Amino acid sequence: VTGRHRRIRIELAYDGTDFAGWQVQPDLRTVQGTVETALSRILGGATARLRGAGRTDAGVHARGQVADALVDTRLDDPELLIALASLLPADVRPVDLRMVPDDFHSRKLALSKTYVYRLDRSRWGNPLDARYTLHYPYEIDRDAMQEALGKLPGRRDWAGFAGSASAVESTVRDLAVASYEEPGPDSGRFTFRADGFLNHMVRNLVGTLLDVARGRFPPGRIDEILRTGDRTLAGPTAPARGLCLEEVFYPPLLEAGEERRA
Amino acid sequence: VTGRHRRIRIELAYDGTDFAGWQVQPDLRTVQGTVETALSRILGGATARLRGAGRTDAGVHARGQVADALVDTRLDDPELLIALASLLPADVRPVDLRMVPDDFHSRKLALSKTYVYRLDRSRWGNPLDARYTLHYPYEIDRDAMQEALGKLPGRRDWAGFAGSASAVESTVRDLAVASYEEPGPDSGRFTFRADGFLNHMVRNLVGTLLDVARGRFPPGRIDEILRTGDRTLAGPTAPARGLCLEEVFYPPLLEAGEERRA
Repeated sequence: VTGRHRRIRIELAYDGTDFAGWQVQPDLRTVQGTVETALSRILGGATARLRGAGRTDAGVHARGQVADALVDTRLDDPELLIALASLLPADVRPVDLRMVPDDFHSRKLALSKTYVYRLDRSRWGNPLDARYTLHYPYEIDRDAMQEALGKLPGRRDWAGFAGSASAVESTVRDLAVASYEEPGPDSGRFTFRADGFLNHMVRNLVGTLLDVARGRFPPGRIDEILRTGDRTLAGPTAPARGLCLEEVFYPPLLEAGEERRA
Repeated sequence: VTGRHRRIRIELAYDGTDFAGWQVQPDLRTVQGTVETALSRILGGATARLRGAGRTDAGVHARGQVADALVDTRLDDPELLIALASLLPADVRPVDLRMVPDDFHSRKLALSKTYVYRLDRSRWGNPLDARYTLHYPYEIDRDAMQEALGKLPGRRDWAGFAGSASAVESTVRDLAVASYEEPGPDSGRFTFRADGFLNHMVRNLVGTLLDVARGRFPPGRIDEILRTGDRTLAGPTAPARGLCLEEVFYPPLLEAGEERRA
C-alpha cells in the first residue's frame, strides 16, 4: 500500500499557549497553519489543506486532536511521520499518522470528542501547572457541583452555553459525560464528552459550574439556562488555558481504514 | 509574636524556563532577583537580601526551594505571604512563609535536598511536558541502569561528576538516594537525595546513567569515574529543563522555629 495520492489521518498534541488557536488566520501563528507549512515543505511546496476535528480556540491545548489531508508523496506513512516530527516545533507534535479511506473526514465523521478542563487548587498557584490549569483556590461545594453536573447529560439545546459568536444551524448536542473529580489534593478536573460542542460551550459550562460550586448560583440555575437558552443567566467563560481536547472518537471501521482499503 | 525585625523562611516553586537561574546577575531575570524586588516593594523600598538553599541553574525548576531573609515590617507572616503572592509573577510562586530563629540559614542548615530529573519517553514528544522533561524516546536497559544506580549511594568524592566551573573546597558529598522509576508508560523519573550537590552533578549523573542505559558505557564506568575523578569519562550534561529541586530538609527543631522562639 504505497499509493502516492492518498488521504492521511494525523493525530496531534499541542500546547496552545503560543498559538492563536487551531484555524488558519492571516499573519497569526496557528496550529493548522504550522502543520500545513510543515506538510507543504515535505510535499515539495505543494499546498496541503488540513481538516481538523475541532477548531480549538486561542490558548486551548490538545492531546488528541485529529486532522486529515490529501497528500501526493512517495513517502510511506512512517516516513511521512518522521519527516513531520522533524519539521514541527516543540509545542505541536505528531502522535500518530496513517492512511485512511478517501472519504474520511476528521470533523464530519467524528462520533464524539472528550474535553478536559483542569483546575489548580493549590493556595498560591503551582508555576509548573500555570499554562495548563485555571488557578482556583476557592472552596468547592461538591454536593452542589454534583447536583448541577447531574442535570447536564442528554440530548439538549445548549444555546444558553454557546458563545455569542456562534452562527451554527442547530444548537442541539448530545452530551454523554459531564463529571468532576479531584485526582490529587491540589487538583480538579472536569471531563465532558459529546457528539459535538458549540463555540465556548465547555468554558461556559465550567464557568457556570464553578459559580454553582461557590454558592453564587443554586444548582437549579442549570435547568433555567437550558430551558430559556439565556446566555446572560450563565457564569463567565472560563479561561482557555485550563481546556484540553483529549480525544476524538470514530467508528471502528474508519479507525481501521488502512486494512479496509488493503 | 509580631516582632518587626525578624528572619523569615520562604518556600518557593518556580518554572525555571524563563529565568537565568536562581542567583542574582546584572541585567538578567533571575528568581532571587525577582523575589528580592517583590520583597523590597513590600518593605517600602528597603533592600531585601535573600539566601537560597540551592543555586539552581538557568532553566532548572523548583517545587520546594527554600530561602530566608531578614525583614523589618509591621506585616505578620500571613500578611507578608499574601503581599508576596500578589506581587510575584505566574512563574515563581510562594508555597509557604514563616518566621524562623535569627540563626536560621537556608543553605548552611539544610540536612539534605531532593532533586528529580524527568524524562518524556513518548515517541515524538509530549508538547504539554516539553518544558519540564528531557525528551528521551530511546531504549532503556533497566538492568544496566539499576546496576549503575546501585554504585552511587554513599559518602564519596564526586569530582568526576562536577561541572568544570565549580571551585568548592571539597567535592565529597553523601548521596542517600539514587533511583529511577517509570511512573507511566511514557515517563521516567530519576530521584537523587544528598546532603549537598556539586555544580551540574545531577545533570552529569543523568547524562552518564542514560549512556549506560543505552549501552554506550558498561555500568562499571561509574566505578571508574568515581575512582579517577575524571570528568572526561562521564556522559554529557543532561539539559536543565528536566531538573527540578523538589524539597529541602532541615532539622525538626529549625522547622518548628516559631514555637522555639515563643
